[in-house]
Amino acid sequence: MLGLMQDWPLTVDRILDHASAWHGDREVVTRSVRGPIVRTTYREIHGRAKKLSNVLLQLGIAPGDRVATLAWNSARHLEAWYAIMGIGAVCHTLNPRLFADQLCYIINHAGDRVILADKTFLPMLAENRARMPLVERFIVFADADDMEDVSLKGALCSEVLIAGASADCAWGGFDEHSACGLCYTSGTTGNPKGVLYSHRSNFLQALITLPRDVMSLSVTDTVLLAVPMFHANAWGLAFSGVAVGAKMVMPGPQMDGASVLELLESEKVTFSAGVPTVWQILLAHLQASGARPTTLRRIVTGGSAMPEALVRTFHEDYGIEMIHAWGMTESSASGTSSIATPDIAARPLDERIPYLLKQGRPLLGVEMRLTDDDDAPVPHDGTTKGRLGIRGPFIAREYYDAGNGSILDDDGFFDTGDICTIDPAGYMQITDRAKDVIKSGGEWISSIEIENAAAGHPKAEMTAVIGIAHPKWDERPLLLVKLRAGESATAEEFLQFLSGKIAKWCMPDEVRFVDDIPLGATGKIDKKLIRQRFEGHILPTAGAASSA
Amino acid sequence: MLGLMQDWPLTVDRILDHASAWHGDREVVTRSVRGPIVRTTYREIHGRAKKLSNVLLQLGIAPGDRVATLAWNSARHLEAWYAIMGIGAVCHTLNPRLFADQLCYIINHAGDRVILADKTFLPMLAENRARMPLVERFIVFADADDMEDVSLKGALCSEVLIAGASADCAWGGFDEHSACGLCYTSGTTGNPKGVLYSHRSNFLQALITLPRDVMSLSVTDTVLLAVPMFHANAWGLAFSGVAVGAKMVMPGPQMDGASVLELLESEKVTFSAGVPTVWQILLAHLQASGARPTTLRRIVTGGSAMPEALVRTFHEDYGIEMIHAWGMTESSASGTSSIATPDIAARPLDERIPYLLKQGRPLLGVEMRLTDDDDAPVPHDGTTKGRLGIRGPFIAREYYDAGNGSILDDDGFFDTGDICTIDPAGYMQITDRAKDVIKSGGEWISSIEIENAAAGHPKAEMTAVIGIAHPKWDERPLLLVKLRAGESATAEEFLQFLSGKIAKWCMPDEVRFVDDIPLGATGKIDKKLIRQRFEGHILPTAGAASSA
Repeated sequence: MLGLMQDWPLTVDRILDHASAWHGDREVVTRSVRGPIVRTTYREIHGRAKKLSNVLLQLGIAPGDRVATLAWNSARHLEAWYAIMGIGAVCHTLNPRLFADQLCYIINHAGDRVILADKTFLPMLAENRARMPLVERFIVFADADDMEDVSLKGALCSEVLIAGASADCAWGGFDEHSACGLCYTSGTTGNPKGVLYSHRSNFLQALITLPRDVMSLSVTDTVLLAVPMFHANAWGLAFSGVAVGAKMVMPGPQMDGASVLELLESEKVTFSAGVPTVWQILLAHLQASGARPTTLRRIVTGGSAMPEALVRTFHEDYGIEMIHAWGMTESSASGTSSIATPDIAARPLDERIPYLLKQGRPLLGVEMRLTDDDDAPVPHDGTTKGRLGIRGPFIAREYYDAGNGSILDDDGFFDTGDICTIDPAGYMQITDRAKDVIKSGGEWISSIEIENAAAGHPKAEMTAVIGIAHPKWDERPLLLVKLRAGESATAEEFLQFLSGKIAKWCMPDEVRFVDDIPLGATGKIDKKLIRQRFEGHILPTAGAASSA
Repeated sequence: MLGLMQDWPLTVDRILDHASAWHGDREVVTRSVRGPIVRTTYREIHGRAKKLSNVLLQLGIAPGDRVATLAWNSARHLEAWYAIMGIGAVCHTLNPRLFADQLCYIINHAGDRVILADKTFLPMLAENRARMPLVERFIVFADADDMEDVSLKGALCSEVLIAGASADCAWGGFDEHSACGLCYTSGTTGNPKGVLYSHRSNFLQALITLPRDVMSLSVTDTVLLAVPMFHANAWGLAFSGVAVGAKMVMPGPQMDGASVLELLESEKVTFSAGVPTVWQILLAHLQASGARPTTLRRIVTGGSAMPEALVRTFHEDYGIEMIHAWGMTESSASGTSSIATPDIAARPLDERIPYLLKQGRPLLGVEMRLTDDDDAPVPHDGTTKGRLGIRGPFIAREYYDAGNGSILDDDGFFDTGDICTIDPAGYMQITDRAKDVIKSGGEWISSIEIENAAAGHPKAEMTAVIGIAHPKWDERPLLLVKLRAGESATAEEFLQFLSGKIAKWCMPDEVRFVDDIPLGATGKIDKKLIRQRFEGHILPTAGAASSA
């Protein structure tokens, strides 16, 4: 027997409909690519997005067609999302930090028919135009008087198109499982893979991340969207922030400390979300300038490890709560939050910090499972490591057009590829990527744990650890250190430094000083490349061990 | 093209699964029907609910079967909800305040196969046993040693059944649109009508009411569930409170001021929700005893008009925020919240109070429409009245087995039967029930507005207003006043009192003093009965008008 409630599909166009109808005057403020601050409202965005929908329809865009954006965070970018999604097309967010090769691969793989882009990226698009044959049109986010120097042949001007379009456009009316957004993972192994979000998954992610124990958003908040809209679905904030009618501040390309602080203060920002790097840059600026944010109360961060000093300084020196939320492209956005349970919330900061640094506790709608190599569950004791599997309504079940079908195991869990612990209070902590973990004598050694410990050495600028084949132990750790400019050090110095900080059996078998530790497109250490560089490398302990 | 996200139906069993797995130690504290405080946890509730599911399966309960509860708020009642819903049966919450006739009608109409009941209600069930022939079994929420005086023939003991059952029971796995809960409206016109909730509607209602601008619930909260679980789906709190892992306090039958205060203090309650009457009773106790709640920070209330003094006193004297949320059985629970927008939040309390007294702004997922008698939209100017229609995923589309199909208009809106205004800030205010509004010379006069104004007269204990047919104006208001014991007054005194408080053309044509103003089962004035009593009544102005 089915319930007798109304049929009201969870399509994201309804989120902007609601914001326009009930929070119509709330502002969206953008630092534009040209520089000046531009102010608009949800009501205006709604009307302009409807016009842009009509533009796309006139260009022949049909439900399911992919329309890409290559843009910084701006009101125009937000309008484009809703314009595309509202008519059932798929908004494919391109990461401009990818190399041209990868971008072309992704654009072709997705079959993008139209690309909407900031002027910043036109040279790259012009240069590679011939390599994206499926793209029919480019629309430039620009005013009419800003098109003169556009060299991309046939590029259309967004403002001219919008000015000529009708705001009368029906949105929604399709299955809530319809595709809505497409975002490719950075692809540390093999080609980038596309995660195809549905209206339902985006809508649910927004709802589930709104409450106090996650993003804690209210209509009274002003949100600085520091996470790029091309990064893992903007952590859902382009939906959740709009859903509550929060004032939204879009920083555009200028993410230096002074520019971010200026927006925080001039717009009275209360909440922001972004990767730790953004906050480290801001913190450096605050410390150098002596300035203090006066309205910012809460930061959600994630995407890479949280340095303790960062969390501690924001809490202690600036009274700003810093919450760790973990997620991945495949989980739409946040899957956990490090918000304190009542027991932990009651403790002093020093005791809370270890929990704040962990990835956090799963949100409702995120089932988590930790398993060992035999797929048996491992205890939640905070020390036993296992592979993390996740299951839920906003987690991917297969990649777009990847030809390999389901990526789930028999129980429907997606393998995150992360090696984690879960402590008795339910906090999950990623200790390593499964492909980076060093399997030594049946134990799992976390490469990240050694890296982080070694990175604390005052002479270290950056550190990386990979596993090297070993005749006795299967694998043993090799520590690479890039020293700060002008420094010199010995391996012994680093081993001494690590002693007591990591378990004895986790100590690197070798320390090598290198000039360069390569980073991937998303700023993470490119271990795949490091492993290639050290292919066939023999550890000094290998001979001793084999002869032992 | 559909998205490629996991299939994870929104079934409410997953909410308790989550609470048990990640908030397993959080307590649910009950003041039991027998008297003592009983403590349990989400983990224990989960295990016991699974056992109770097996009991129901053994009794032959199949998906879609109706299983009723007739009980106060308690952990056992909560277990029963999840036990019933988890196996796809329908939890029918019976309101013990209904008359036996109505209860029997509802039980038979629903086709309840099993009733789980508190001991309190066994005499009524025993007395009317023959009138509910479809009921196969009664299960009493009781310990084994508390069954001796149970006179209801064949009644089973819940604790004996649970003790003998396995906790191994698969929940969920069905369509999220499956029926899940059934609640009958009090039926001011005709027979009571059943609203059949789905798993999806309950899950979404919980998610949408969690954020800061609505219930604002967190794992760090302790929730006193003052709203009965048989009242409009317990305003979703049996799902939303569990979803965040809040500590839950179940007051059982004792809702007097001293008992409520005792629980607030002993359990360190931070949040509660219930009808205004509960808070008026509590306030009277606080004022008489001089006691102060020390941890309570926030109350959500609704279900009837909010007296200004109540809101003001809780804010000013006790520092407790009182939020008005409006909903109805047909809307699952809350459809609005009176939480302040940034503009209003910035004002002093005196200026905020008029907004706090309104029903509030619509939640995401509640589309609101105000229309006049010609179905044309009326302006949101705060004064023009219209009929309120609502549309959304947790709003009813038809009544259970009512034989009349859809209750929606052509645009899919449900007519709430309320006459409302919406102000420019988006706050909806109910001015009357459509059937009670007095249509006088083409204008709509709110019966409630006159009642409330007259109720402010120091000699009035209770007031009621109905429309009486009038030869010139169609209808004109008749004010009924029940005076406080020992008081006497003249009609002129009341008209004088009203003068300046309501518009001149809304002044009652007659004031009558009565000994009794009848109330319905939910404590609201029974205007249907009053209209019957005054059928054919001729207003003193009727003759004058007809001869004018």
